[in-house]
Amino acid sequence: MGEVARIGLLGRGTVGGAFAELLAERADDVAAAAGRRPEIGGVLSRSEGDFEEILESSDVIVELIGGTEPAREYVLRALESGRHVITANKQLVASHGDELFEAARRAGVQLRFEAAVAGVVPVIRVIQESLAATEITKVFGIVNGTTNFILTEMAATGAAYADVLRRAQELGYAEADPSADVGGADAAAKMAILARLAFHAPVALDDVTYEGITEIQPDDLAYAKELGLSLKLLGVAELRDGGVSVRVFPCFLYRGHPLAPVEGPFNAVMVEAPAITEITMSGPGAGGRETATAVLGDLVSILAGRAPVHETRRRLEVVRDVSSSFYLHLEVADRPGVLARVADVLGRNGISVRSVVQRGLGDDARLVMVMHETPEASFYAALAELAELDFMRAAPRAIRVIEEEFV
Amino acid sequence: MGEVARIGLLGRGTVGGAFAELLAERADDVAAAAGRRPEIGGVLSRSEGDFEEILESSDVIVELIGGTEPAREYVLRALESGRHVITANKQLVASHGDELFEAARRAGVQLRFEAAVAGVVPVIRVIQESLAATEITKVFGIVNGTTNFILTEMAATGAAYADVLRRAQELGYAEADPSADVGGADAAAKMAILARLAFHAPVALDDVTYEGITEIQPDDLAYAKELGLSLKLLGVAELRDGGVSVRVFPCFLYRGHPLAPVEGPFNAVMVEAPAITEITMSGPGAGGRETATAVLGDLVSILAGRAPVHETRRRLEVVRDVSSSFYLHLEVADRPGVLARVADVLGRNGISVRSVVQRGLGDDARLVMVMHETPEASFYAALAELAELDFMRAAPRAIRVIEEEFV
Repeated sequence: MGEVARIGLLGRGTVGGAFAELLAERADDVAAAAGRRPEIGGVLSRSEGDFEEILESSDVIVELIGGTEPAREYVLRALESGRHVITANKQLVASHGDELFEAARRAGVQLRFEAAVAGVVPVIRVIQESLAATEITKVFGIVNGTTNFILTEMAATGAAYADVLRRAQELGYAEADPSADVGGADAAAKMAILARLAFHAPVALDDVTYEGITEIQPDDLAYAKELGLSLKLLGVAELRDGGVSVRVFPCFLYRGHPLAPVEGPFNAVMVEAPAITEITMSGPGAGGRETATAVLGDLVSILAGRAPVHETRRRLEVVRDVSSSFYLHLEVADRPGVLARVADVLGRNGISVRSVVQRGLGDDARLVMVMHETPEASFYAALAELAELDFMRAAPRAIRVIEEEFV
Repeated sequence: MGEVARIGLLGRGTVGGAFAELLAERADDVAAAAGRRPEIGGVLSRSEGDFEEILESSDVIVELIGGTEPAREYVLRALESGRHVITANKQLVASHGDELFEAARRAGVQLRFEAAVAGVVPVIRVIQESLAATEITKVFGIVNGTTNFILTEMAATGAAYADVLRRAQELGYAEADPSADVGGADAAAKMAILARLAFHAPVALDDVTYEGITEIQPDDLAYAKELGLSLKLLGVAELRDGGVSVRVFPCFLYRGHPLAPVEGPFNAVMVEAPAITEITMSGPGAGGRETATAVLGDLVSILAGRAPVHETRRRLEVVRDVSSSFYLHLEVADRPGVLARVADVLGRNGISVRSVVQRGLGDDARLVMVMHETPEASFYAALAELAELDFMRAAPRAIRVIEEEFV
């Protein structure tokens, strides 16, 4: 109980500041749970501290700088000199995972990063520990709070993307440069990490295909409501056709899907495995104190004892031709035979329709449809044909739909 | 990698059999994750095996017998002789936790029991590890799959409790003697364990007040649907008025509550803490292979290294006078002034009404109301007064309602 664990803190931003504060408050509880009392021995920020000095005097390094360099260099140095490391840096783990895990294994130290994916939602721990020996087939969910906040607001208010983004920035839910969040790159990095851990394979950031939410129109959300659908930016990592598929895309969910009620800046992840059907976990995906709490949980585990360091066990092909169900929004001239020609294009491409809403608008009409699952290549072929039809008033819009019904 | 971990398996029922099978299938993955390959060294069942011999030749004892004796004696013997123990036995941990945790601490071994609460939903690990140093204020959820299956079926089909129970027994979701499940005692044991871990206090089974679902009427569920409510058997453990309150009761949830969509034999638990708002976890609450998967996760952690053993850090008063919101179902004579007299009784007891549905039935009428939160003692006083009114045609029925709205 009397022994002290010295923590070297790299970074003094929102999360770094919240962690320092939380650690001071909860030091007694850490000591009670783990047998050692943590104390911050040194802090590195832009204006203070020397990395080598901090490293020298620390048992555990907590990296909350973000970005790839110099975070990568610091983390590698710390691991190589036998220090346990905790990081919240998804970019770093997604881009340099192989190198970091190898360094940790070689030095016999822990590298923990619960806060890097889905904030305080304990998805890393559950995959790496609870399900360490369980065959996982799919991990998917909402792993970006900024986009989920924007989509929730757009659906609730009918406002346009740009207006809601501005509001999110004012409220601190979106950064001044929101491109990594709204373009899907942030979620892609998180999904690369989850795929790697779930499938024990060296999935890299380049293996993830991603789309963002910048093209979403308010009337897509309005029609979706009529069809009983809600829109999420989904990350999906799954074993498929003997390989792996990791994708991020905006997607409609039917009401009753466990992820449908996840709103605002919350994150949620589902893990599917034949032995257990599925586990769903949700909670706040961001926030200084929330993220700092995830870091604190990692610290307790490090001080309490050793834990597995991730090791890849197989290579997997990246599968790109997958099947999906789609929502399709067409602006057409309102004249006889239009629906028949659209149906003909879909039919010839082997696509069957699940539901249709048609609405007149003066001389024009809107045709909104949800399809059953079909290979994406066939759907995109149909979409290209549809775009060429002479009665089409605007480019067709397509968004994926998760069709599964949940009990 | 070459080293073998010998597992002594006590019990060869549904879960024991599934665990033996799963362990054989996944032994390579356990070895890869934890560095030691598990092998079952001995099995104790009614017809085979000798406990002392099995103990002697085992590194880890897995207790899947259930019940208090001889499970308690075996687990204590195993801990005292320096063996790590995994158990799925909620009755044992809830009733004899202090003694077992003390024995584990004294011997410096692990005692793990993820499978004892909510099957494969990783609530024990998340509370004991991810949130070990976080101040938890409330843990609540659906921790009994049998009753959730019955309530889901009653709501979907309109069938009576007794008929649905029979169906659940045929499908294997309810035992031949279902009293511990439907009466709430099973959920009470699980909530005692969760309260103990979350609040670091020696909560005993006797501290938990509980009710079951045997009195639920199909028309309560029908009215509830009209009011946008769904019924769950809820376990709630919370810090309240400087003490602790642990209760199990049937309860209505508004649509949009994270637990409302949890149906069938699934379980779900929410953990609230000021630093993180809340985490929600759900998944299958029972089933041989699911429970065996939870046991396997514990085994990996034991073989990988040491983990905290629960230790109580404070004593807490048991608080019994709590406030709740209620649904109230009255069968009354259909005559002028009835609603006014009911409203008068409620008003005098300080209870305000949130919504009312009134329906005529020939000479009689049904009055279904949802109240705002009020001290339970006041509500029960009003209920006693209402029962005495001369126009009352049947005993009033009351069910708690969770009123909070979720985003």
